[in-house]
Amino acid sequence: MTSPKSSNLTWHGANVTSDEREGILGQKGCVLWLTGLSASGKSTIARRLEQLLLERKVTAYVLDGDNLRMGLNKDLGFSPADRAENIRRVGAVAQLFADAGTVCITAFISPYREDRDLARSLNLPGRFIEVHVSTSLEACEARDPKGLYKKARAGQIPEFTGISAPYEVPMAPEITLDTENRDVDECAYQLVQDLRQRGFIPAA
Amino acid sequence: MTSPKSSNLTWHGANVTSDEREGILGQKGCVLWLTGLSASGKSTIARRLEQLLLERKVTAYVLDGDNLRMGLNKDLGFSPADRAENIRRVGAVAQLFADAGTVCITAFISPYREDRDLARSLNLPGRFIEVHVSTSLEACEARDPKGLYKKARAGQIPEFTGISAPYEVPMAPEITLDTENRDVDECAYQLVQDLRQRGFIPAA
Repeated sequence: MTSPKSSNLTWHGANVTSDEREGILGQKGCVLWLTGLSASGKSTIARRLEQLLLERKVTAYVLDGDNLRMGLNKDLGFSPADRAENIRRVGAVAQLFADAGTVCITAFISPYREDRDLARSLNLPGRFIEVHVSTSLEACEARDPKGLYKKARAGQIPEFTGISAPYEVPMAPEITLDTENRDVDECAYQLVQDLRQRGFIPAA
Repeated sequence: MTSPKSSNLTWHGANVTSDEREGILGQKGCVLWLTGLSASGKSTIARRLEQLLLERKVTAYVLDGDNLRMGLNKDLGFSPADRAENIRRVGAVAQLFADAGTVCITAFISPYREDRDLARSLNLPGRFIEVHVSTSLEACEARDPKGLYKKARAGQIPEFTGISAPYEVPMAPEITLDTENRDVDECAYQLVQDLRQRGFIPAA
């Protein structure tokens, strides 16, 4: 962790404590960090989970890899340095959402352990839940909904995770989701139950 | 607006429409963009407003200049280019909060018109409310709670807004707040009333 570039900064705390905020909102902020290969199902599970939570009146929001690369992170490419900066910014934004009391669901390949650990370190202990969407490369490549694996195999996309760039499997994720033997709904419901058990959202 | 660096991106929409989300949450997302000199009262008003909204069970969150410069924007200084990038990122994050249905209150000097207009352009029409905290330089310098004006006058802080860097007054802000003849509570309550009148939060 480096120091900020300016030294003339003063931290401004909210007038309302986190406990007060969470008491009012009836939920606790957290980050559900989905990591996995392209086409592993991260975005689909994230969107379904967001829907299930909103239906239960829980404030939830998805930060999605492609969407953020069209906005906040549009200046970044896919080199290791740019990927690291991409995830650093996403981690910082996810922490803001968690601080706001929102259940923040992130859907980024986030292939490097170091970057995921940095995102984790920005959050309060217990507030960062790493979810490995563990779909195999073979299954992802067979799905290939955007035709990206085909392009990557043809050498048309450099540094494509799983083909020409590494994916570092999480060592100790809080949750592992097997999408090859379970459908999206099952995976999303499991996450709702997990959020309940961890006390982030009210019991049913 | 430049194009994103990668062309292999697919926009992923939520399963829930914005209308559905806002119906469930009982509020509409928006950005209340406070701009003004250092010590003009931006952060204090923002924090008081956030408190008033939370007390009314409205999900609200403050993005504060100094805080973001310790996190998301810690790599940025105060040159015109870095200030522009600071505000570009904040604008993108504020838009995400508004998209999530949150009343997002930003408290940044944001001295350049072009940067504020860019932040405005990222949001849906009517969802960006520019609030000029119009405290005069003389009053801000007399307050000087962090001693920054004194340092700036002594040449110890380069590019300090109002002293050695410009502040471009908003041409057509939605709201102007006079903090020299009204206290913080009056200003914050005015903003609550304005949010009601614009239909972002429920009537009292």
